Amino acid sequence: MKLATLKNGTRDGQLVVVSCDLSRAVAVEGIAPTLQYALENWASVSHHLTLIYDDLNIVEDIGSVLRFDAKLCAAPLPRAYQWLDGSAYVNHVELVRKSRGVEMPESFWTDPLMYQGASDVMLGACDDVVLPDVKHGIDFEAEIAVITDDVPMGVSVADAAKHIKLVMLVNDVSLRYLAMTEMAKGFGFVQSKPATAFSPVAVSPEALGKYWKDGRVHLPLVTEYNGSEFGRPHAGMDMVFDFPTLVAHAAKTRFLTAGTIIGSGTVSNKDRSVGSSCIVEKRTLEKLDSGESTTPFMAFGDRVKIEMLDEHGVSIFGAIDQKIVPYMPRHC
Amino acid sequence: MKLATLKNGTRDGQLVVVSCDLSRAVAVEGIAPTLQYALENWASVSHHLTLIYDDLNIVEDIGSVLRFDAKLCAAPLPRAYQWLDGSAYVNHVELVRKSRGVEMPESFWTDPLMYQGASDVMLGACDDVVLPDVKHGIDFEAEIAVITDDVPMGVSVADAAKHIKLVMLVNDVSLRYLAMTEMAKGFGFVQSKPATAFSPVAVSPEALGKYWKDGRVHLPLVTEYNGSEFGRPHAGMDMVFDFPTLVAHAAKTRFLTAGTIIGSGTVSNKDRSVGSSCIVEKRTLEKLDSGESTTPFMAFGDRVKIEMLDEHGVSIFGAIDQKIVPYMPRHC
Repeated sequence: MKLATLKNGTRDGQLVVVSCDLSRAVAVEGIAPTLQYALENWASVSHHLTLIYDDLNIVEDIGSVLRFDAKLCAAPLPRAYQWLDGSAYVNHVELVRKSRGVEMPESFWTDPLMYQGASDVMLGACDDVVLPDVKHGIDFEAEIAVITDDVPMGVSVADAAKHIKLVMLVNDVSLRYLAMTEMAKGFGFVQSKPATAFSPVAVSPEALGKYWKDGRVHLPLVTEYNGSEFGRPHAGMDMVFDFPTLVAHAAKTRFLTAGTIIGSGTVSNKDRSVGSSCIVEKRTLEKLDSGESTTPFMAFGDRVKIEMLDEHGVSIFGAIDQKIVPYMPRHC
Repeated sequence: MKLATLKNGTRDGQLVVVSCDLSRAVAVEGIAPTLQYALENWASVSHHLTLIYDDLNIVEDIGSVLRFDAKLCAAPLPRAYQWLDGSAYVNHVELVRKSRGVEMPESFWTDPLMYQGASDVMLGACDDVVLPDVKHGIDFEAEIAVITDDVPMGVSVADAAKHIKLVMLVNDVSLRYLAMTEMAKGFGFVQSKPATAFSPVAVSPEALGKYWKDGRVHLPLVTEYNGSEFGRPHAGMDMVFDFPTLVAHAAKTRFLTAGTIIGSGTVSNKDRSVGSSCIVEKRTLEKLDSGESTTPFMAFGDRVKIEMLDEHGVSIFGAIDQKIVPYMPRHC
């Protein structure tokens, strides 16, 4: 099934079921007014939502069907109780460390990196990225994330897989110069990770079909930067920790509430010909190759588009398509 | 005004207004069913809640008044969209670093440390602390935290003060041996910071009266460990960053949603005679004094009690009073 949240003036928006081809949608307030509600009551509502999804894909007219428009979408969870982002493509971590002249500990291949991110404001796929200062080193990060239902503490990797209910794409907006200062403190990212954006549509593992295997999504993740292709690394390759492993890592010492979002970190392949999913990795490769990073970080007006197409070229999650704009404080 | 959330089988509990002396409470579902709702609609509901608080303190019978029992309380926000914990008592940070033989950067006196904590499960004041393994180095941390309404990006320190709506006590449960590994990674705390507990009652700055000044709470914070006093540092002393400064730090590059909780970090005074608010600080002082830490971390069955009394010995927030118990996974 495919689900999205339409903006409706409330903080949590309105849940809709979206057709497989992303052309049509239907509101389901009688079953679940919001995605958070659906996740909290997954056992009783998911079957109903799946039936509507199946109908929507077959029948032309099933009542009050809307034309689906990604521009009207909030993030599938416009605010969430938890957003934990891993760094499962260890190749990326190793590269970035190397360019900084820092050896990566061997343990990073066996013990996942993960940070607790801000989840109180999530951006819709086409929302502007509003930021105060280009001097902070604005970057995108193209990623994949899953949403869980309630997960027990100490869950096994095998059981963790059963708690993955939905999959999304992510633009994990990062402020690189602030991140350097914050990493040195050891307390993780606060100022350097502003609001994160998500694909218009969240897709169940079942609806991903053969592309969901071994707890990974097996398709390239395509990033376009100002209209040109920036990277298309394959999300199923070089992902050292699969999603169930990331979920189990997060739940080692605590319960996870329904609606917990867990990210893969920047998708990255060892094969350099496929490009990168963030500017900092490209700058790293430039530095390693020529001694100097030449690609600048983002400027106001720059655009990033993140999308995943199936083998027939059909968009699975819809596109994240955002512009960076300056923050204009209102004094009132 | 004083507010609490009673457990009622739902994820967000039921909001009640509590009398100044914590003896009585009244449900206010007609005004605000939950504290999250109240914070989202503060401008329209806070006046009504204050009127009820005033009545409750004067009149003996104002309708369906309940006997207030801290044991029936969830955390004031049983789940929140954001929990950011500072480390404003820099004395504590400097001490702990010193015992590890690490110099503290001078910038720590001017640029607050802050981490993004898990907010999807918050513990009630008398809830057991359920943890999987004593070998993780279980510790308490007695702190103070504030709750904000919606805060704009880039808020000034002066304006940030106006967004502080409520104040609480905190037990920031920490797993010290896991924290060492996680700090070395630079990504902050995930496994080493399990669910956090809060005082039964959240109190408005107005109701704190003269004890709320300069963005700080001016009273000692008393920690009892297994029935003996462990520390009573003064929360108004040695707090290098006041709460408005912590809120402004958090909002530098993003908006904060109503219901954001921001913590002070472990309360700590330079005056060692007042004791400590966490075991790791006591162990640090032992190591600096004698070369060896002798106080062990917590064991299953140990209890911690955190409370703040006014000058007349009256509890302001009620007591956090918790037992550490082993996690028994249910296989179902």
